[in-house]
Amino acid sequence: MQNVDVLVIGGSAAGTVASVTGKSRYPDKEFLVIRKEEQAFVPCGIPYIFGSLGSSDENLAPTAVFKKAGVQLRIGETVSIDTGAKTCKTADGDDIAFEKLVLATGSVPLVPGWLKGADLGNVFTVPKDKTHLDGMLATLEDCNQIVVIGGGFIGVEVADELNKRGKNVTIVEILPHVLSLAFDNDLASRAEEVLTARGTTVRAGSGVKEVLGNGTVRGVLLNDGETLEADAVILCMGYRPKTELATEAGLELNPFGSIKVDEYMRTANPDVFAAGDCAEKRDFLTRKPSRLMLAATACAEARVAGMNLYKLSAVKTFAGTIGIFATALGDHAFGVAGLTESAAEKEGFDVVTGSFEGIDKHPGKLPETHKQFVKLIVARESGQVLGGQVAGGPSAGELTNLLGFIIQHHMPVSSILTAQIGTHPLLTAPPTAYPLTQAAQAALKQVKAAQ
Amino acid sequence: MQNVDVLVIGGSAAGTVASVTGKSRYPDKEFLVIRKEEQAFVPCGIPYIFGSLGSSDENLAPTAVFKKAGVQLRIGETVSIDTGAKTCKTADGDDIAFEKLVLATGSVPLVPGWLKGADLGNVFTVPKDKTHLDGMLATLEDCNQIVVIGGGFIGVEVADELNKRGKNVTIVEILPHVLSLAFDNDLASRAEEVLTARGTTVRAGSGVKEVLGNGTVRGVLLNDGETLEADAVILCMGYRPKTELATEAGLELNPFGSIKVDEYMRTANPDVFAAGDCAEKRDFLTRKPSRLMLAATACAEARVAGMNLYKLSAVKTFAGTIGIFATALGDHAFGVAGLTESAAEKEGFDVVTGSFEGIDKHPGKLPETHKQFVKLIVARESGQVLGGQVAGGPSAGELTNLLGFIIQHHMPVSSILTAQIGTHPLLTAPPTAYPLTQAAQAALKQVKAAQ
Repeated sequence: MQNVDVLVIGGSAAGTVASVTGKSRYPDKEFLVIRKEEQAFVPCGIPYIFGSLGSSDENLAPTAVFKKAGVQLRIGETVSIDTGAKTCKTADGDDIAFEKLVLATGSVPLVPGWLKGADLGNVFTVPKDKTHLDGMLATLEDCNQIVVIGGGFIGVEVADELNKRGKNVTIVEILPHVLSLAFDNDLASRAEEVLTARGTTVRAGSGVKEVLGNGTVRGVLLNDGETLEADAVILCMGYRPKTELATEAGLELNPFGSIKVDEYMRTANPDVFAAGDCAEKRDFLTRKPSRLMLAATACAEARVAGMNLYKLSAVKTFAGTIGIFATALGDHAFGVAGLTESAAEKEGFDVVTGSFEGIDKHPGKLPETHKQFVKLIVARESGQVLGGQVAGGPSAGELTNLLGFIIQHHMPVSSILTAQIGTHPLLTAPPTAYPLTQAAQAALKQVKAAQ
Repeated sequence: MQNVDVLVIGGSAAGTVASVTGKSRYPDKEFLVIRKEEQAFVPCGIPYIFGSLGSSDENLAPTAVFKKAGVQLRIGETVSIDTGAKTCKTADGDDIAFEKLVLATGSVPLVPGWLKGADLGNVFTVPKDKTHLDGMLATLEDCNQIVVIGGGFIGVEVADELNKRGKNVTIVEILPHVLSLAFDNDLASRAEEVLTARGTTVRAGSGVKEVLGNGTVRGVLLNDGETLEADAVILCMGYRPKTELATEAGLELNPFGSIKVDEYMRTANPDVFAAGDCAEKRDFLTRKPSRLMLAATACAEARVAGMNLYKLSAVKTFAGTIGIFATALGDHAFGVAGLTESAAEKEGFDVVTGSFEGIDKHPGKLPETHKQFVKLIVARESGQVLGGQVAGGPSAGELTNLLGFIIQHHMPVSSILTAQIGTHPLLTAPPTAYPLTQAAQAALKQVKAAQ
């Protein structure tokens, strides 16, 4: 029986950050991370092993971080937890006793039960599993007609990377555009245009009825009766929290199947925390449960869990999930933070929007200048910024983080207008037409508080 | 005699933004911008005409913005202002009557009186003047040994651009490193390393005694007695506010020679505003007068001036100048916001710092990944963030803007630690080691409020 102070189950983003933050906060405590995978991935890097990286070996998360932080790492599978006795059992028959437990068990690809043919040969999902992905990569080498089902971030990124490798790729998406859950239509259609121009075929507004084949896949049958030929199919239909251990230990799940947690990432048992894809998320603005799973959110939750393990800190709570994410297609980038206009309206917010299209360097004659489009979603009454979206060049990623800070700190749109920014010809839009400021000006005109 | 409601003198960054913002806020008022230059420049783009752009024609600010906003543009020189009668005289003998006046007369290169030889042939400054710069560009075509005096932003950028064109360039800087006024030594020496590796010679810690030559420049005599040969010399020794019109009109200047203004950018005469390089700046944190002149600051001031022309708005004040700027050397970028560590200490702040070096994409094996270094300067007692510096790839520009927002909104460093960020392999650092978050963690450990 191994005895530790803090046991962290799972060693991807959340497990790593929870243990390293916890150890830094409580240096006298002994921390152990147990994970199944000998080699763990950089989770968001996975789509890029299909193209830019070329091999899963280029996408391994360094384990030196544990050693450097003084956190022990054990490779092994946890098969059960006894939260009362504060022990867990491993697959090799060992017991580990703990004072505090952090569940960071992650998520697994979602394969809908109704989808016939999902078990055929050459039908893949995209899990965080090196063996699976290495096999998949080898098989795809000989495939040329690839259908990706689902046009969310993973689907779009995998498709674009395979297209880079010269494959014929078609994305089938049931919503009107790819990335429709993340972006408003105006942004989503910009992303779709870039994706299509780069060579991926997009069949948006098309539902999939069945995956066809006999032993091995040969095509995909759409709802409208058409058949797309395929020698490989990749299911990018979302992920579900991996919570078997938690359920068997008697921990409560929310309606989306995530482990219920409070503001400090504690379950109902104050010695058991959960963080990352397996943990419950509530929307930052609406407080409703959210299905969003992002590595960056996982890390923020894990930091909160790690800091609050032994002493609750009033300032270090988790304020709720604010979706902040970005994607890139070549040197075109698209980012979103907070609520989209359509999500805000669906929630019943009375919103106005302001947007502006400029350039991401200045003057625009400089090489590699992209258009930069910024859209802000603002509460009409108060002027509070609820969301923002960006389309531009690679700097759109950090600009999206700036939007995220504005939303998280409940800033009014007027504070953007008077805020000072820094600009540089090679790095940003011009100061005279910085799209974020201009979009704020357009939105503020419609805000009641400003009248 | 022309009659207008609002007259703006100067049509560069501040003049443009003041007039366009003002017109948008007060659409019934007639706005006129008067400026000397038929063709105006994108001010921060000027160093890039020496290399990346290749010609000043590629760096012209579009005039369409005035027309689109409904602002009149008149090319002409203003020779005097009568603030009592509310009129001004132009060089062609015309009078213009106004209700409100905005002075946006900018700045001119500073040439110290003690510098002998500054008037020799092939000794240049870098003003915002197309005719001068076109002539300079043509002359430099045939020069090969160029000495740049002054290693601030303009000096460094001009040197690197000329170096790109195959010239032998030496920067002479009296401080220990180039960019020493902007960055702490650790960051400044990183920038200097990049600059040097790209081919510019840096003579830091060297003062200039005299520019040598007979008619035309032949070299530069350093304080230590050494002579650097040169067939051209470029003086990048700073800029001074252009305030002749204001002084003759009886407006008061501050000790740095800038037009005194209040929080709304008004001079002592409530109908006369000033914005941009010619207007007084006070530091955001210390409230002391500041010499900083940045196009982005000018635009923020101009927005405040434009919004407050006829009705003061309590929320739209100018909160003081926060230095936010960035520069790029090839694909290496360096940014700074707020106080440096050395400036904070000089002011008497009790500060701690936290820094972290990571990567700007993830995994690090992705092409074009740069190291990304973030340093935070934090008040020890309260944890308030006073300043930040970034060295990295091109995304450092917008990341610097995020730092600027944090400082402007008086955020404590703990709010960075729990803030959610968005990450993407091709666009940002990994979520597990996002340098801004990691630097905040390192700083927070030393903050008293966190104990």
